[in-house]
Amino acid sequence: MKLSKSFLKTSKNAGSGETARNAELLIRAGYISKEMAGVYDYLPLGYKTLKKIENIIREELNAIGCEELQLTALQNPEPWEKTGRFSDSVMDVWFKTELNAGGQLGLAPTHEEPITNLMKKFILSYKDLPVYAYQFQTKFRNELRAKSGILRTREFLMKDLYSFSADEESHNEFYEKVSDTYIKIYDRLGLGDCTYRCFASGGAFAKYSHEFQTFLPVGEDTVYYNKDRSVVLNEEVYNDEVLKDLGVSKDELEKTTAAEVGNIFTLRYKFSDPLDLKVNDENGELKTVFMGSYGIGVSRVMGVIVEKYADEKGLVWPEEVAPYKYYVIGIGDRGAEEAEKFHETDPENIILDDRNLRPGEKFADAELLGIPYRVVISDKTLATDSAEITNRQTGESKLIPLKELTL
Amino acid sequence: MKLSKSFLKTSKNAGSGETARNAELLIRAGYISKEMAGVYDYLPLGYKTLKKIENIIREELNAIGCEELQLTALQNPEPWEKTGRFSDSVMDVWFKTELNAGGQLGLAPTHEEPITNLMKKFILSYKDLPVYAYQFQTKFRNELRAKSGILRTREFLMKDLYSFSADEESHNEFYEKVSDTYIKIYDRLGLGDCTYRCFASGGAFAKYSHEFQTFLPVGEDTVYYNKDRSVVLNEEVYNDEVLKDLGVSKDELEKTTAAEVGNIFTLRYKFSDPLDLKVNDENGELKTVFMGSYGIGVSRVMGVIVEKYADEKGLVWPEEVAPYKYYVIGIGDRGAEEAEKFHETDPENIILDDRNLRPGEKFADAELLGIPYRVVISDKTLATDSAEITNRQTGESKLIPLKELTL
Repeated sequence: MKLSKSFLKTSKNAGSGETARNAELLIRAGYISKEMAGVYDYLPLGYKTLKKIENIIREELNAIGCEELQLTALQNPEPWEKTGRFSDSVMDVWFKTELNAGGQLGLAPTHEEPITNLMKKFILSYKDLPVYAYQFQTKFRNELRAKSGILRTREFLMKDLYSFSADEESHNEFYEKVSDTYIKIYDRLGLGDCTYRCFASGGAFAKYSHEFQTFLPVGEDTVYYNKDRSVVLNEEVYNDEVLKDLGVSKDELEKTTAAEVGNIFTLRYKFSDPLDLKVNDENGELKTVFMGSYGIGVSRVMGVIVEKYADEKGLVWPEEVAPYKYYVIGIGDRGAEEAEKFHETDPENIILDDRNLRPGEKFADAELLGIPYRVVISDKTLATDSAEITNRQTGESKLIPLKELTL
Repeated sequence: MKLSKSFLKTSKNAGSGETARNAELLIRAGYISKEMAGVYDYLPLGYKTLKKIENIIREELNAIGCEELQLTALQNPEPWEKTGRFSDSVMDVWFKTELNAGGQLGLAPTHEEPITNLMKKFILSYKDLPVYAYQFQTKFRNELRAKSGILRTREFLMKDLYSFSADEESHNEFYEKVSDTYIKIYDRLGLGDCTYRCFASGGAFAKYSHEFQTFLPVGEDTVYYNKDRSVVLNEEVYNDEVLKDLGVSKDELEKTTAAEVGNIFTLRYKFSDPLDLKVNDENGELKTVFMGSYGIGVSRVMGVIVEKYADEKGLVWPEEVAPYKYYVIGIGDRGAEEAEKFHETDPENIILDDRNLRPGEKFADAELLGIPYRVVISDKTLATDSAEITNRQTGESKLIPLKELTL
């Protein structure tokens, strides 16, 4: 990507009313733009970063046999009425709208009802189980407040996976497999060293669900954890009964703030029962399908990565998530020429800053954008046939031979 | 992809109320599922097909220097009020909704207003022009009727590109470049031999716009065309004045039905003027930015491809659009083993029908799914160390050496 050909522009400030650091930096770096509170556009760099995160999640879910599909935002009230969740008093984040042809619709804040309903067409016998289906889909949630940047928004990209199993045992096996896969995903996203599986409330149908919590000063959640972090629990289940269950005492636990980056949920029959998703088992006995759901907020995760890594100079992306790997700046005629040559080797991974700006401005933008490696080619580096490469995260610089760069 | 591991199931009928052939076949083949009139889920095969189409369009737009971003569905009325289009009497396809925090929002049926508004942050001088920005985004349109399957729906994937130019001349140059690119795209989509650039109404700001029309019996539009199809015009501009303009007479023209698969539009100052997108030119004179917009309905195009190619046995996909290239069936133990080996060579491009079904059922599904090449490996073909490969479109079969297959 050549910056001279892009509409990208960084800015000194994020505009009025942006209080969350993640959104402030992403706006200043030209990754996102705010449409209104809790509603953000993704500009080329932001969109590319979001798609990198999406793709890591996709690869790991495909590897455990999940199938990708895409359900709709517009929702017929019917299946939601069967589970009681179309009511605003039960689910208070609905956006509702009216069909010109007559009738009320909702914009899906989640998809348990439509996917359960859909599976009635495909799960006709116990032989059709298990089914693992997921999507990357824009969710709409009519949040009363939106003040955490892209951590909690009214329109956002979510990965939601649903599992349909013959019984609790096979469900549990898959549940643990997803849990392991989530750990792999957070590792690849650069959140592995501070993200933990955490006990949370299971709602009415299971004793616990699990969240994945990234320890983070700006996190909205409060969690308690023991020394080796083998036990982490959300404040909502921090009570004597649960502590006894988990075999820990209050004085072993410390308290911190954390941001939820995923959750896995045993749904049991909550949706399959009212929506009548039942099959005959081997013995011809009618059995209700056992369900689970597994979410990761893709744009939310992007915000958490920003919060974890950013420094006073701007964004810092882990390599696998970064929209581009290199940011190359050529100084002087020969430097510009070599920078252009390097860019040609892989324009999908290299930003060429060929704008008519002073080097200092380019250095500042390279830092604000958070691209993992800044490459500078100047008369000085060319004197030894080399380029200077600087690691954005550590700030370390070294000279490397020019021909290694263009390999 | 192994069918034994997929929830995919074909069916004999598409369910009640599905009158459009494209949707009926796509539902029977398990590509899509109907949520309600004009609202369809994309199941794994359908989603993959949609993404293939999307990717062809993306590659061609990137090649002419367009930048991808993603705007939001939720819309603040403000910019739309400035152009007068928030009113239901001006734009009758709005879905509107209410924020819990107070205030009315709309779901974007198109994105001229927000992108013009966004560009006020990035286009600050004539030096920032041109800008070409596009997205693949779910549009919402509150159509009164929805009866053409995925050709006209209430929620659909659209590619919309917007251009911002310094003047009419540079706009016209880009407009023609997009037009040429569209022709390349339709070629790759398998629609090249029956899709034509067609004169259509330009609205209030330009004499003409252009549509790309695929000649098709079930098309919703009526177009007139001359013998060599160098002049094609939409019925809406079929009048004496236009015919004189184009230098054709009524007796040179024939009439046919066609489906619109894209449009390109000179917007002039329609949005940049009321939304105040203005820059100083070289001479310090304030000039309004000259705009164009360019759409392709991605899901609509998928439906048109179905309508053009499908036959009495089911779907037929052109190779570049097909979700998978091969559909392999092994008959007998050794056949099954070789089929599995072939599948292993490239599971992303090969469907292995390893279900416990009679060969006849598998043959029928291979045809219904429309996968370009059916590969059958049986004792009979193995007697000559070969596999039988059948072209879905022509029906031609031939034996090819097994080792060529697994290369």
